[in-house]
Amino acid sequence: MPSRSFVLTLSCVNRPGIVAAFSSTLFRAECNITDAQQFDDTESGRFFARVMFDSNDPTATADVLRNGIEVALRPFEATWSIRDRSSRRRIMVFVSKLDHCLADILYRWRIGELEMDLAGVISNHPKQNYTNLSLDGIPFHYLPVSPDNRPAQEAQIELLLNTEKIDLVVLARYMQILSDGFSSRLLGRCINIHHSFLPGFKGAKPYHQAHERGVKLIGATAHYITSELDEGPIIEQDVERITHRDRPDDLVRKGRDIERRVLARALRYHLEDRVFLNGRTTVVFPG
Amino acid sequence: MPSRSFVLTLSCVNRPGIVAAFSSTLFRAECNITDAQQFDDTESGRFFARVMFDSNDPTATADVLRNGIEVALRPFEATWSIRDRSSRRRIMVFVSKLDHCLADILYRWRIGELEMDLAGVISNHPKQNYTNLSLDGIPFHYLPVSPDNRPAQEAQIELLLNTEKIDLVVLARYMQILSDGFSSRLLGRCINIHHSFLPGFKGAKPYHQAHERGVKLIGATAHYITSELDEGPIIEQDVERITHRDRPDDLVRKGRDIERRVLARALRYHLEDRVFLNGRTTVVFPG
Amino acid sequence: MPSRSFVLTLSCVNRPGIVAAFSSTLFRAECNITDAQQFDDTESGRFFARVMFDSNDPTATADVLRNGIEVALRPFEATWSIRDRSSRRRIMVFVSKLDHCLADILYRWRIGELEMDLAGVISNHPKQNYTNLSLDGIPFHYLPVSPDNRPAQEAQIELLLNTEKIDLVVLARYMQILSDGFSSRLLGRCINIHHSFLPGFKGAKPYHQAHERGVKLIGATAHYITSELDEGPIIEQDVERITHRDRPDDLVRKGRDIERRVLARALRYHLEDRVFLNGRTTVVFPG
Amino acid sequence: MPSRSFVLTLSCVNRPGIVAAFSSTLFRAECNITDAQQFDDTESGRFFARVMFDSNDPTATADVLRNGIEVALRPFEATWSIRDRSSRRRIMVFVSKLDHCLADILYRWRIGELEMDLAGVISNHPKQNYTNLSLDGIPFHYLPVSPDNRPAQEAQIELLLNTEKIDLVVLARYMQILSDGFSSRLLGRCINIHHSFLPGFKGAKPYHQAHERGVKLIGATAHYITSELDEGPIIEQDVERITHRDRPDDLVRKGRDIERRVLARALRYHLEDRVFLNGRTTVVFPG
Repeated sequence: MPSRSFVLTLSCVNRPGIVAAFSSTLFRAECNITDAQQFDDTESGRFFARVMFDSNDPTATADVLRNGIEVALRPFEATWSIRDRSSRRRIMVFVSKLDHCLADILYRWRIGELEMDLAGVISNHPKQNYTNLSLDGIPFHYLPVSPDNRPAQEAQIELLLNTEKIDLVVLARYMQILSDGFSSRLLGRCINIHHSFLPGFKGAKPYHQAHERGVKLIGATAHYITSELDEGPIIEQDVERITHRDRPDDLVRKGRDIERRVLARALRYHLEDRVFLNGRTTVVFPG
Repeated sequence: MPSRSFVLTLSCVNRPGIVAAFSSTLFRAECNITDAQQFDDTESGRFFARVMFDSNDPTATADVLRNGIEVALRPFEATWSIRDRSSRRRIMVFVSKLDHCLADILYRWRIGELEMDLAGVISNHPKQNYTNLSLDGIPFHYLPVSPDNRPAQEAQIELLLNTEKIDLVVLARYMQILSDGFSSRLLGRCINIHHSFLPGFKGAKPYHQAHERGVKLIGATAHYITSELDEGPIIEQDVERITHRDRPDDLVRKGRDIERRVLARALRYHLEDRVFLNGRTTVVFPG
Repeated sequence: MPSRSFVLTLSCVNRPGIVAAFSSTLFRAECNITDAQQFDDTESGRFFARVMFDSNDPTATADVLRNGIEVALRPFEATWSIRDRSSRRRIMVFVSKLDHCLADILYRWRIGELEMDLAGVISNHPKQNYTNLSLDGIPFHYLPVSPDNRPAQEAQIELLLNTEKIDLVVLARYMQILSDGFSSRLLGRCINIHHSFLPGFKGAKPYHQAHERGVKLIGATAHYITSELDEGPIIEQDVERITHRDRPDDLVRKGRDIERRVLARALRYHLEDRVFLNGRTTVVFPG
Repeated sequence: MPSRSFVLTLSCVNRPGIVAAFSSTLFRAECNITDAQQFDDTESGRFFARVMFDSNDPTATADVLRNGIEVALRPFEATWSIRDRSSRRRIMVFVSKLDHCLADILYRWRIGELEMDLAGVISNHPKQNYTNLSLDGIPFHYLPVSPDNRPAQEAQIELLLNTEKIDLVVLARYMQILSDGFSSRLLGRCINIHHSFLPGFKGAKPYHQAHERGVKLIGATAHYITSELDEGPIIEQDVERITHRDRPDDLVRKGRDIERRVLARALRYHLEDRVFLNGRTTVVFPG
């Protein structure tokens, strides 16, 4: 009987005894902790933990384990979850004209690097725009948007997310701004890639802004969206060196590489339950 | 009454219940875990943990806490230690002609960045060699070495380390090879900086080797020494980009910056109890 | 009348007057130098230059310009070439089972990032192996290899390269070793990606070697092949940080990202005439 | 008779024939170009060049060579200079309370890494503040500043710079803002280190801003000062990865390492005539 793998994530106001509470419960349930990371934010007073554990008990479903943990964590008023690592989240990828991030996600998903179900792609451009990659077997939703139909298109999207039971939205260079209401409802469930090293160069055409300012490194930022544009909690960032020889076109080219790897990392961190919201920021347990 | 801070480090064969054992003990001792990192090496079957905790109990010395932990961890046959974070290790820095790593360590220590007592400097060159930095107030031991006096010089060094109760030796570009016996006795207590990205360019003149091979990045490696030259467990490495324009002299210059920051990081990790030996490799908990 | 763009590359024994010779010739031919990089290797005594220039003269073909430069450079016994930047080289990509580098090259080529003609793909695995990417419209040559047919397979390959007038071979994780003779004939025309930071971890299974040695960074190396395995002149390298948590599988995953970007950079540098052989090393003019 | 080394820097509106003009002149003067880098900014229409050359003629002073170049470049209305590489610029370093950048510059200068004359140090703190480094033999000017004496103190500074014939001012964490007029008069002759990755986190307490925003990398920026705070042309930038575990104090510590290496690089680039102003940005020829 092979062992089964689970991940427990929790956050709460920091108080003595949390670790003892969940580790004793897991021990009594004959589970073995294989990896644990904890963080006590002395500023916010909050405690965060990610605990991976195995169980050899064939009856140990996530539901059964939840009952034990629920009792153990009740005194701490924690936000927590247990996920069977074999369960997969349903992802919807949004894209506009540029498809390098989509192409990268598709490839990683096809070779099994990303543990998720790809529920579909939503674009404000028709399918024939994407000749550089293969969308074979992936539901494609063409939902054009114009100044006139914006609220209606967004309602269509939200309906689709609900119908398809989407756990996470990935804005893979989707160049439309979501409404405040929609953004709020997606809090912690929608990752965007911004093509600059935030907080530098918010808004439109960041590579042109970077070129004009003469920075020596350009970057990209993956963050959860909030109703405030380009201000959501940052999950991952990276940069690359540029020189005076790089024109805006070169920055766009170099930027493609940064964007796709930053977004892919952020997505993987989320899928592996490594990311916690902590006010305006995130806690990301490495792995 | 201000709280006191401790760090518990432990490693043992992985078995269920370790986390529950120490966390329950700490909870009962009214300690609060502020940071915990654990790692279960599925290959070697070993478990590693670093646990920082505070105690508000004024009678809670490291000795008292050790008694409780000793009982809790006895079944696991763990190697463990508890250190009061206000206690400081005694460090001896070894240096030869080049003093950039020594200068860097001295500066970091003087501004309070490195939590250690600098017990002294040992060199095979006389003190007047070091005009580029200030050795004011630091015991300096000039112990010249030649083919004839090598064993005698090493015996002198070992005696000095014992007399001075040295916890850690830092080879800050000390260009003499320690004997096998001495190296073995220093296992896990002697950090060397090698001026290449190991395992590339072992041995002498690594920058010249790198130049000849035409690599596009050069690096440095901080490792614990063993009796096998340049083969000890690696603690930290870093690299920098070079180009065809860089002659060996330029590599030496760029290398100085890499060496000093890699050695300083490794030293800090060791002083903060972040490094564990794991066979030929190390576990380093980030911070 | 739009201007036409050319690139002059030259290398020779360094002697005064080279720059004056070609720059005066280009000036008299009413060309405008838009970018020039030169390097004088004081060790080998060789001079290298890459000169981009525009001509507004509609009759100024590369052939016409060559005549002038030929006269100007004759005294210097230089190796040189002039390429009309609108001409494209013919590339053949070799691949084995792992297709992440091939997928990356295909995508970059399809979106116009790589200025080349993709003449085809050669694999020792059948086409149905590659379901994660689209090979639509690309000639695919399945040339299986076994201990028995190795010389015959290589002869087939060499014939194909000649028939297809291939300018550059890209070994995109092609896991077969080319014979000494074939390697020699491809000197400077065949780029390989090795999945380690050479000269560390030559040969097979470098990620496993890296894991066993406990390095803190892993890398990849793009180099021209020579008859000596993993010893050819290095074009580009890059690394990424790893930790004790990374098992060999994680290194393979992180390595894919490094490999594809290092190979893509090396390929672009070659296509843009930025790379010069200089003994065992290369000169790479940045851009 | 050893050869003498010179560096020619020039910038002008781009027109055909510039390279031919100076290279022919140098050739006729029996000089040998050892390194040349050129850049044609197609946006601003300006041309930049840095040319290193040797002369074996003992009578070939910079003055003599200037005469020839002056004639050759007159038609191009270029801004240019020729510097004998053995001549050294006079540098004044400004510092406030934090001395890590000063300590680094002093050490690099003492070991001969920076080709400059250190004319002195100006501080708004008394000399006894600097116990972590040795100021032996370096003129120290204590010029305290308060809201009342600001213009007077700046006048004192400016007088001192003139008296001491200072070529370059280095603001090594000098935490006073220079007046608009003074800043303008120092254009291109005053390098500041800002402790953030500009344009992010301008102004005061950038590490606290970075911590609050939750960025995943922090950086530093060396730039020429202008009358606009933190907006001057950027010479060099670098970053380092941080995590949620890093509190503002940790950012300050990690930042020290970034600041000192970014400032040291920018200073070296300036001293080696690698940096050109190009509107709001810089051209920096690598080396």
